[in-house]
Amino acid sequence: MKVLISKKTGNYYYYNENGDYHCKEGVIKEEDLKSDEKLVKANTNREFIKFDSNLYDMLQKIKRGPQIITPKDLGYIASRTMLNKTSNIIEAGGGSGAATLFFSGIANKVKTYEIKSEHCRIIQKNLNSFNVENVELIEGDLAEIIENEPENSADLIFLDMPDPNFILDKDLKALKSGQYIVCYVPSITQIQEIVNLVSQKDNLYFEEISEVILRHWKVSDRIARPEHRKEIDHTAFLVFIRKI
Amino acid sequence: MKVLISKKTGNYYYYNENGDYHCKEGVIKEEDLKSDEKLVKANTNREFIKFDSNLYDMLQKIKRGPQIITPKDLGYIASRTMLNKTSNIIEAGGGSGAATLFFSGIANKVKTYEIKSEHCRIIQKNLNSFNVENVELIEGDLAEIIENEPENSADLIFLDMPDPNFILDKDLKALKSGQYIVCYVPSITQIQEIVNLVSQKDNLYFEEISEVILRHWKVSDRIARPEHRKEIDHTAFLVFIRKI
Amino acid sequence: MKVLISKKTGNYYYYNENGDYHCKEGVIKEEDLKSDEKLVKANTNREFIKFDSNLYDMLQKIKRGPQIITPKDLGYIASRTMLNKTSNIIEAGGGSGAATLFFSGIANKVKTYEIKSEHCRIIQKNLNSFNVENVELIEGDLAEIIENEPENSADLIFLDMPDPNFILDKDLKALKSGQYIVCYVPSITQIQEIVNLVSQKDNLYFEEISEVILRHWKVSDRIARPEHRKEIDHTAFLVFIRKI
Amino acid sequence: MKVLISKKTGNYYYYNENGDYHCKEGVIKEEDLKSDEKLVKANTNREFIKFDSNLYDMLQKIKRGPQIITPKDLGYIASRTMLNKTSNIIEAGGGSGAATLFFSGIANKVKTYEIKSEHCRIIQKNLNSFNVENVELIEGDLAEIIENEPENSADLIFLDMPDPNFILDKDLKALKSGQYIVCYVPSITQIQEIVNLVSQKDNLYFEEISEVILRHWKVSDRIARPEHRKEIDHTAFLVFIRKI
Repeated sequence: MKVLISKKTGNYYYYNENGDYHCKEGVIKEEDLKSDEKLVKANTNREFIKFDSNLYDMLQKIKRGPQIITPKDLGYIASRTMLNKTSNIIEAGGGSGAATLFFSGIANKVKTYEIKSEHCRIIQKNLNSFNVENVELIEGDLAEIIENEPENSADLIFLDMPDPNFILDKDLKALKSGQYIVCYVPSITQIQEIVNLVSQKDNLYFEEISEVILRHWKVSDRIARPEHRKEIDHTAFLVFIRKI
Repeated sequence: MKVLISKKTGNYYYYNENGDYHCKEGVIKEEDLKSDEKLVKANTNREFIKFDSNLYDMLQKIKRGPQIITPKDLGYIASRTMLNKTSNIIEAGGGSGAATLFFSGIANKVKTYEIKSEHCRIIQKNLNSFNVENVELIEGDLAEIIENEPENSADLIFLDMPDPNFILDKDLKALKSGQYIVCYVPSITQIQEIVNLVSQKDNLYFEEISEVILRHWKVSDRIARPEHRKEIDHTAFLVFIRKI
Repeated sequence: MKVLISKKTGNYYYYNENGDYHCKEGVIKEEDLKSDEKLVKANTNREFIKFDSNLYDMLQKIKRGPQIITPKDLGYIASRTMLNKTSNIIEAGGGSGAATLFFSGIANKVKTYEIKSEHCRIIQKNLNSFNVENVELIEGDLAEIIENEPENSADLIFLDMPDPNFILDKDLKALKSGQYIVCYVPSITQIQEIVNLVSQKDNLYFEEISEVILRHWKVSDRIARPEHRKEIDHTAFLVFIRKI
Repeated sequence: MKVLISKKTGNYYYYNENGDYHCKEGVIKEEDLKSDEKLVKANTNREFIKFDSNLYDMLQKIKRGPQIITPKDLGYIASRTMLNKTSNIIEAGGGSGAATLFFSGIANKVKTYEIKSEHCRIIQKNLNSFNVENVELIEGDLAEIIENEPENSADLIFLDMPDPNFILDKDLKALKSGQYIVCYVPSITQIQEIVNLVSQKDNLYFEEISEVILRHWKVSDRIARPEHRKEIDHTAFLVFIRKI
């Protein structure tokens, strides 16, 4: 896949087919698109910078069902839990699969539980388009299955669901001692419910609640200021609980 | 290594030796430390929660020379560039090796350039304590060597140095088309210098400037508020430049 | 003026006339609007909470030309400079008059300089609708006039203009010793220019650069989270310079 | 009072007496302090910029008992409620009087209720040092007295107390229709309690919850970055409730 960036508007376009490329800024000929030139012109004379796409571009193009988890949150989960290629992850609430795609690129193996079959279809489609092979996608409720997972088999349990207490209240012997359950929750009220439960469990330790805020900047010759878009917006709080 | 958390103070202690453990909150006996009990008592009657340490704990214990890059920044670099186990990384400005340790857990291979031999010793010591095997640590100036790196051999160039323009001004054929150079820079003035250079290079595209802000929260039975510590503090801006 | 808040949508409406009130949520009868009832019904059966408007409501209704300065910034200017009813203010760059309206409610006297006659008309209209009597609105360039202002006559000089250096470079004997010139500037590049000039002036001291960030929260029975709107957005930096 | 700023350290000193001034950076002679010179030298040869103090300087010097409310919060309260010289304010929880001092400079009249006699003494001392004459300081519990306040006598009720519901639950006929009760509360849990009560009161409308975050910047010749101090820290949430 190729990325095309309009020099006039800064808009991104993705070219993944054969034939000429048609967009609202003009038509670019196939021979130009397949050439080695880094700058191509549309019939409207507009110029486009051309280079290879990467995985981040592909992530922008995945099929969206439920809201995806943003890079700012995924990244902090990975660095805070020191995720690595030996990690085995159990995940509940697959969403559109953005987290699954990111985790699967890093981890040894990801087991993804998702209750809704419609979401499962979206996730599977997205996994296929990334040629992901280390994800086991299971249509079902992790709460019913978690106690059957082998002991000490998981390095991370990631919960993106309205009520993570359904999982936290189970026997979490599948998770290794010292490792994390991370809950992704949009509201403080959910954290309060988690705190109430965890304070009664003697095998869980409530370690950290974090909020990751991302600010984009615009710097050019004469300007240096935060971008005027709503990127600082709230997505969710991240709750880090450790298995004792 | 074991983590010990005092129930009274919430302080963390790390036990990695033989013999009894002495800390300012008391002495804990070896037999208790090596037992399966999850709660141990010091001679002062203070209780400590005990569980296995993880990589994040180990990272807190690494030898510090220059300032380390924080998880909030490392995580966003990983998720924004979709780092994964096939990635080959070239890194300049190794610092204390925190970034190197995180990247090496994810990537296929990391080449780390560091000018100061004192820093190299710290990094090598830290890599050894993590048993890292996919990092090549080179004492030297990346600016002098980057043009000799094999073409299309790198998926990410990460620069943590006062003047990244020394690298950006070179022929970066080592980096694959569409992939990122990420600069970690504390000051807007450095971004301005980067912008000036990149705008003149027809093989680089200035894609994003981000600032990651982390906010810790305290939620208990009767309290729910941001923590009173200075964690929202500024570390650096992250500049994402793409190879055309 | 009356405020009407729809119980269904939460939308605000303002009623300042005679006759029935027509809005997209229905028609409310004049006799209901003029009654003492705090809850009125439209012909659509929708309920509206009714109470007296205040100055903040009026500010929402002022005629807008250029972008107005937001309460978050105006408030910090007032508290940081300890504005009070004895203060005499000189202001350049009147905008739509939002700052002028706020300052005039607090200060003894405000002198507002605005170059564009079109903006002057908007400001004057807005001042009239608030019955403001302690503002002298002058169509003209403060840079040409500031040196004619009486010595020690001002407690605050507020500059909302692209290049405040045109003023800062003048003899500012009109401002009392120890008092502030506050510059409202959207970009770091403007601050850099101000810093360069002020560092050469021995009668000015660069005291503080602040950014005020506002975050709205939503708290209800089951929710407690930051609002999903773009209110944290960047407006401007506030630069506080003191007269030596 | 004079402000002295050390050119070497940037430290502020305040001179309000007769005689020479002794500080850890040296001794400055009375004749230099009382001269018209803007730059004076200590016996250590260190230079100090000298100018008149202002009210903000005085506020830094007030006697501190309980924690003071910061300018960032005071300012937004003033601008969001459009406080002005006709405003009559009722305030409970006087703290050290910082809010009272700021409000009294703007408003027509401030009635301050404070339960603790020790705090009352601090507030009175601070009011005296500012020569404030429009504040009535009452040692007592506003909850017991609020219903005796004359009808429509107040334009703002400001509550800085652990449980503002003791006031909100009373008949607030003293507050004019459409005007604000502002609660200053450090924790989300307090907001939840307020929301619960206000949702049951048909004469109160819950309008806004805000958090004001202040970020200081450092900009010099070669640097432009947020300050490395903990000023973005959390103080409190501001809750704006309107009288119907």
